[in-house]
Amino acid sequence: MTTVHTHDALTARAETLDAQSPLHGTRDRFTLPDGVIYLDGNSLGALPSAVPAVVGDVVHRQWGERLIRSWNESDWWSAQTRVGDAIGRLVGAAPGQVVVTDSTSVNLFKAVVGAARLRPGRTVVLTDPDSFPTDLYMTDSAARLAGLEVRRVHPRDAVAAIAEAGEDLALASYSSVDYRTGELWDLVAITEAAHAVGALACWDLCHSAGVLDIRLDADGADLAIGCGYKYLNGGPGAPAFIYVAERHLADFDQPLTGWHGHARPFEMSGTYEPAPGITRARVGTPPLLSVLALEAALTAYDGLSPADVRAASLSVTGLFIEALDALGVDLPLATPRDDDHRGSQVSLRHPQAFAVVQALIARGVIGDFREPDIIRLGFAPLYVTHVDAVAAAEHVRAVIADREFERPEFTERGAVT
Amino acid sequence: MTTVHTHDALTARAETLDAQSPLHGTRDRFTLPDGVIYLDGNSLGALPSAVPAVVGDVVHRQWGERLIRSWNESDWWSAQTRVGDAIGRLVGAAPGQVVVTDSTSVNLFKAVVGAARLRPGRTVVLTDPDSFPTDLYMTDSAARLAGLEVRRVHPRDAVAAIAEAGEDLALASYSSVDYRTGELWDLVAITEAAHAVGALACWDLCHSAGVLDIRLDADGADLAIGCGYKYLNGGPGAPAFIYVAERHLADFDQPLTGWHGHARPFEMSGTYEPAPGITRARVGTPPLLSVLALEAALTAYDGLSPADVRAASLSVTGLFIEALDALGVDLPLATPRDDDHRGSQVSLRHPQAFAVVQALIARGVIGDFREPDIIRLGFAPLYVTHVDAVAAAEHVRAVIADREFERPEFTERGAVT
Repeated sequence: MTTVHTHDALTARAETLDAQSPLHGTRDRFTLPDGVIYLDGNSLGALPSAVPAVVGDVVHRQWGERLIRSWNESDWWSAQTRVGDAIGRLVGAAPGQVVVTDSTSVNLFKAVVGAARLRPGRTVVLTDPDSFPTDLYMTDSAARLAGLEVRRVHPRDAVAAIAEAGEDLALASYSSVDYRTGELWDLVAITEAAHAVGALACWDLCHSAGVLDIRLDADGADLAIGCGYKYLNGGPGAPAFIYVAERHLADFDQPLTGWHGHARPFEMSGTYEPAPGITRARVGTPPLLSVLALEAALTAYDGLSPADVRAASLSVTGLFIEALDALGVDLPLATPRDDDHRGSQVSLRHPQAFAVVQALIARGVIGDFREPDIIRLGFAPLYVTHVDAVAAAEHVRAVIADREFERPEFTERGAVT
Repeated sequence: MTTVHTHDALTARAETLDAQSPLHGTRDRFTLPDGVIYLDGNSLGALPSAVPAVVGDVVHRQWGERLIRSWNESDWWSAQTRVGDAIGRLVGAAPGQVVVTDSTSVNLFKAVVGAARLRPGRTVVLTDPDSFPTDLYMTDSAARLAGLEVRRVHPRDAVAAIAEAGEDLALASYSSVDYRTGELWDLVAITEAAHAVGALACWDLCHSAGVLDIRLDADGADLAIGCGYKYLNGGPGAPAFIYVAERHLADFDQPLTGWHGHARPFEMSGTYEPAPGITRARVGTPPLLSVLALEAALTAYDGLSPADVRAASLSVTGLFIEALDALGVDLPLATPRDDDHRGSQVSLRHPQAFAVVQALIARGVIGDFREPDIIRLGFAPLYVTHVDAVAAAEHVRAVIADREFERPEFTERGAVT
């Protein structure tokens, strides 16, 4: 009877919180399959309901009927900066500083080389050893070409390492949220420390844009990159974005000098001259089906402030943790309980984490596994409600308490991003 | 009466050629607006009829319903190499050497830096001063980072310049077709000359893939890049491709080391280890709406051999030139009349080329303008018929003979790609 009582109490509380949420009703802006609690929006965001009609229009009318004329008539030419500005509104960036282009990996390459050129003579780049691997690989590769030294220093030690590097430091490049644990780092402190020695800071917003109250301009970030297909819901492999603070734009000298970044691309000059402003971070012709799907997806944020989204995210993840406690699930949390140190996911540790994730998926609770022992559950507050959070906690309880994860069908390994 | 006679004779000949063409009926594989003769497939290919249903499925079912599970269940993970192999069939590349990824610009950056690393100690890169500008910009930027010297040498002088550079030469990087004039260059001779001094050759196939009988493997190309949105009809900004010959793959050390190029991406190792094979040329998560649209588009080539496509292309462009002659259009041809030196476009010169192009567009004949005086008309033989070619020639005659291009509405300039 205790479980029933706990269920009823948690569900009642969840319903109240949902009703009072500033995001009440935003789930209706998404198309989700029945019977699914989708906690993997930090890997691939759900389908916003506005997307299919826009993609259909892009294919049939813009491409099929208008053909090449759509560069002007459908304003394809400004799509990347237009969508960049829309993302800018979610990450505290005034217009003209964000562009949608390429992948996060490619944009980090531009950022690292570009930062080194903004700080000539400085050779050290600091980054997190626990970064998402592509950040490490791309930083290493940029360093190899640009003659830099990469120091991998944990974010909690970054301020000290910045002071130690001093005037050798060109760039401190950190993610605001650890992709595995969901721990939130103090990028403001890292940025201030970098500025104190004359260096720059680059923020990786892959796990922050669209769920945190990021304030790039106000907090003095120099550069930022992020992903379009996670909490921004742009669709599989949606193009990424890059932010360059206004004060650096005129001197931002990025290494992937494609014709879409040229000041006057149709003059077909043989000499590269970067476009004024953030347009210079563009490279080749962008994948417009994906760019315009992302634009449509961002309308799911219409009328929502980043502060409201962040509050809802903390409320949902907080209730999920509370429900785990109440239900007696005693798995170690990899994610901080403290609101000030938690992104928008809750990660649990379990020696058979892979099988636990498979068992949850079989129950319709879709999360993902990360090496070595992480059950990663992302909460996209636009479509994951408090009621979902309580139901997800009950599924976790059942999988663990009934040892469902030991069933053979859940132990076979496959590739899941 | 002469004009009527000429019209009838040309049209009859065109109808016969269409009926006999190995590509007879392939126009039905495309959705084109009524009243349009589309001669800009070298800028943005037309919409293949197979695409909309596939894109709808990707959006609704693969993304919307299967969500993250589509990486396995819809085999997103192998899409880039699967589509790469499909392109390989059109450019004479055996499976496992082509991958769809990024933009042409980004792929050229990988190719130039990768080539230099395959030929350490060599510092010279040769390229065409009349290349499409992005090739020049990216080559310059790669050279700046990798410590190379770029020599811009016209393709007709390339063999001599290769011999002169000798063992300093790392790479000869040339387009097979001049994007403005449509002139076809002898990349086989350039490749043989490069190999004779121990260097590599990279082929830019943007204006060749899907219309020429390219034989990368047979002709010994080392590297190649190309575009998915021109004659391959993958849609606006469709991802590009890169080819690395099998013999170079194990040592191909490209600079954009993203996690999708890693041997075991889900181990999340902090150390980059390139995947075996062409997968190492992948970088970040690819824009799957665009990748899978390109895959669907390529089915328009089902059952067609590159040799047949090339024959049809030459037949259509040849008839267009013949029709211009017969109709008394005496604009200078920028494109060689000789089949052996002509790509799949016919470019004409006119001092008011921009206005001529606008006047043609008003008549439903869509081509494009290229600085300074080029009327560029691309013939995609899968959907441009011999009858279209004759009709287009008659429109050109009318625009020139009646001086339609002098009308004020045709002289205003705007951006058209």
